[in-house]
Amino acid sequence: MRPERLEIAVIGGGLAGSLLAITLAQRGFRPIVFERRARYDATEPERGRSINLALAARGIAALDRCGIYAEIEPLVISMRGRMIHEHDSTLKLLRYGQRDSEQIFSISRTALNRKLYEIATRRHGVEYQFDSPCIGIDAGSEQPIIETHGRVRTLDADIVFAVDGAGSAIRGALEEFGALAVSDERLGHGYKELAIAPAPSGGYAIDPHALHIWPRGNYMLIALPNTDGSFTATLFLPLDGRTSFASIGADDVSAFFCEQFPDAVGLLGSLEEEYADNPTGLLGTIRCSTWTFDNRYLLLGDAAHAIVPFHGQGMNAAFEDVATLDELLDAHGDDFQPAFEAFERSRRADVLAIADMALENYAEMRQRVRDPDFAFRQQVAFELERRFPDRFIPRYSMVMFHPEISYAEARRRGFEQDRTLSKLCANASRVMDVDFELAERLVGAA
Amino acid sequence: MRPERLEIAVIGGGLAGSLLAITLAQRGFRPIVFERRARYDATEPERGRSINLALAARGIAALDRCGIYAEIEPLVISMRGRMIHEHDSTLKLLRYGQRDSEQIFSISRTALNRKLYEIATRRHGVEYQFDSPCIGIDAGSEQPIIETHGRVRTLDADIVFAVDGAGSAIRGALEEFGALAVSDERLGHGYKELAIAPAPSGGYAIDPHALHIWPRGNYMLIALPNTDGSFTATLFLPLDGRTSFASIGADDVSAFFCEQFPDAVGLLGSLEEEYADNPTGLLGTIRCSTWTFDNRYLLLGDAAHAIVPFHGQGMNAAFEDVATLDELLDAHGDDFQPAFEAFERSRRADVLAIADMALENYAEMRQRVRDPDFAFRQQVAFELERRFPDRFIPRYSMVMFHPEISYAEARRRGFEQDRTLSKLCANASRVMDVDFELAERLVGAA
Repeated sequence: MRPERLEIAVIGGGLAGSLLAITLAQRGFRPIVFERRARYDATEPERGRSINLALAARGIAALDRCGIYAEIEPLVISMRGRMIHEHDSTLKLLRYGQRDSEQIFSISRTALNRKLYEIATRRHGVEYQFDSPCIGIDAGSEQPIIETHGRVRTLDADIVFAVDGAGSAIRGALEEFGALAVSDERLGHGYKELAIAPAPSGGYAIDPHALHIWPRGNYMLIALPNTDGSFTATLFLPLDGRTSFASIGADDVSAFFCEQFPDAVGLLGSLEEEYADNPTGLLGTIRCSTWTFDNRYLLLGDAAHAIVPFHGQGMNAAFEDVATLDELLDAHGDDFQPAFEAFERSRRADVLAIADMALENYAEMRQRVRDPDFAFRQQVAFELERRFPDRFIPRYSMVMFHPEISYAEARRRGFEQDRTLSKLCANASRVMDVDFELAERLVGAA
Repeated sequence: MRPERLEIAVIGGGLAGSLLAITLAQRGFRPIVFERRARYDATEPERGRSINLALAARGIAALDRCGIYAEIEPLVISMRGRMIHEHDSTLKLLRYGQRDSEQIFSISRTALNRKLYEIATRRHGVEYQFDSPCIGIDAGSEQPIIETHGRVRTLDADIVFAVDGAGSAIRGALEEFGALAVSDERLGHGYKELAIAPAPSGGYAIDPHALHIWPRGNYMLIALPNTDGSFTATLFLPLDGRTSFASIGADDVSAFFCEQFPDAVGLLGSLEEEYADNPTGLLGTIRCSTWTFDNRYLLLGDAAHAIVPFHGQGMNAAFEDVATLDELLDAHGDDFQPAFEAFERSRRADVLAIADMALENYAEMRQRVRDPDFAFRQQVAFELERRFPDRFIPRYSMVMFHPEISYAEARRRGFEQDRTLSKLCANASRVMDVDFELAERLVGAA
């Protein structure tokens, strides 16, 4: 049944590429993964590159589909909510969900990538070729060109998956060919990673089971826990303007942090050096006119639809891409062409929705979480979910904890929820004052 | 041959809806147009709503395709370039193209809409129903619901075209149904229209054959000529921040204009009243996951893909939509379903490209036109076009004057041009110093 001799190239051996390779191997294919970087076990993580990520239910569901989540689980640290650090150093925990089980999971990009690589290679015999960036597509054969240590070769693949990330070389080459159009919308804000060391006693310096946020209106600092007791902090700041990466030099950064993040400054042991040495990362949204080409290419993950990181859904969406493709290969009997077409048709609305929700969440994290009204609306939303669990699930919870609800559906219901919550909160300042009879009418039938 | 009895509803009798109705009537169909507004000939133009537009080659080509441009041409005023008003009131003309024929055309939205309505109704017998907004879609029949003077009815249409603009009710209803996902990305800048009266002597107060720009970095004032000797000026400004619609009240506006637009302030006779009374318009980009639904609906124009106005291409793109659909109905023998699918497939890349180019052009208009390097690059680009007319057409010219080159192709070539121009301009400060042998190699084969 299975066309085992199909040559499948997976361009990019990062998180999505490795999960895709596992999925394809489990289907009986023998993909070859081409990875730009040197062999993972021989290298240190890249400096200043987002090194911890938030795994949530969509990503877990995709890992579960391959039967490998049990091996990933030991790598994660659960986070039950956002720990808000006010300007006066008071702390406030805003839980992610109303149930204790509704948590998200901090995980090291490097550790997860190595684990997926290990599963792909040791269990499934997937071949990885390292030091092998794709440098373009051959105009005649329309095949990827790979360069390894100066040696250039053109592949001869029946199927090519582009999972080579936000800066995808395949996407760039297809764009140059006129095979697709790409929108790369920069946010105008950048980020810089900074390290919080473990406490001198060896434990965590701050609560490990939370995503820490120092919301400051137009910018913010966040921190996610690592398994070794450290945290990775990330400063998000406009690129230009009054308070920005352009205006704050390494000489100014200590004063800026003492002023704005007084309770964090003591945790950031090498603030000035890291601020000077770590690159300023750019943020943006990639949108493509199509993700397929020539019945042969499919773009997946960041290569197809990079989003800003503020909903913690970039990796989760990429993993969900892989799971969706796997379902469609089931439905189409491993026939790639109709599966690719169906993927594009079914996934476009979801990707449009999560890209927007990720952008919207930046304002929520850096600004709205400070507002007492925000916490009150969230309490009311949780109460509605408790009372009407089949009829009301807060949008954030749908995105993070309900993979059975698509991103597009979550966004659509979110608009309704906003209207409902605005009506219910207009005349109440405590949850007990909310008109739950009106609420029941507003949330409608199950 | 033609299914004359097909019931076709055109929701929206604006510019695109009227051109579409003409096109459909010319194909032998009998569309009915449902329009929210009152009968055109009985009403004044809406206040503060963009009342002049820039018609360029794509729009003209679409009008020509219907054989009606000769009737539109008397309504336009040609603009040969951008007249830059420096802060010290000096003027600088930056031509749009290197050929005298490369001009764009200011036209009144109201006059054009009335002319298209007149052609549709008088020549082609198209029925318009006014005061008839679409207020949603019936969940059972999936048919548009129209309300006229309080009377609500559900249509029974075989085909529904949603050409009801950026705030499309059809699109909103389809979004609520979960039939498509919509991204509505606000720019963060708004606009306000202001009037420049004719000179006391009766003529134009400033050069009528130019699009006037007062570029001021993060904001700008522009003015387009009207046939009656007046100009419509538009102030584009951030919504919030130091210099913004939030910070500048009606009391401050005269001082702000005296400071920033000294040579314009005398032309704006009712600045304070208009600033106070005219609404602040919002700007944004609409992206949809699909433009079709149920083999019955097709979204076109702003309803499908509203863009920011800075490339003057919103109306032109909408007219090109109509021409593209007309071509596809030719190709598919008036079979709507395959034509709709082909439309979506072929048009998506172009719409993605013009949306981005429109956003990019804001920074060009308000900021980069001030830079002497910008004018120099443009001169070099024109010289390349003169020397290698088959191989180099500046991106702006491709978008505005070359409808045979798609938006996506224009954007793609634009990236190459940027690299070429950067190399050529790096070591030259006058056009005569440019290395045109290198240029010939860089622009490549025809």
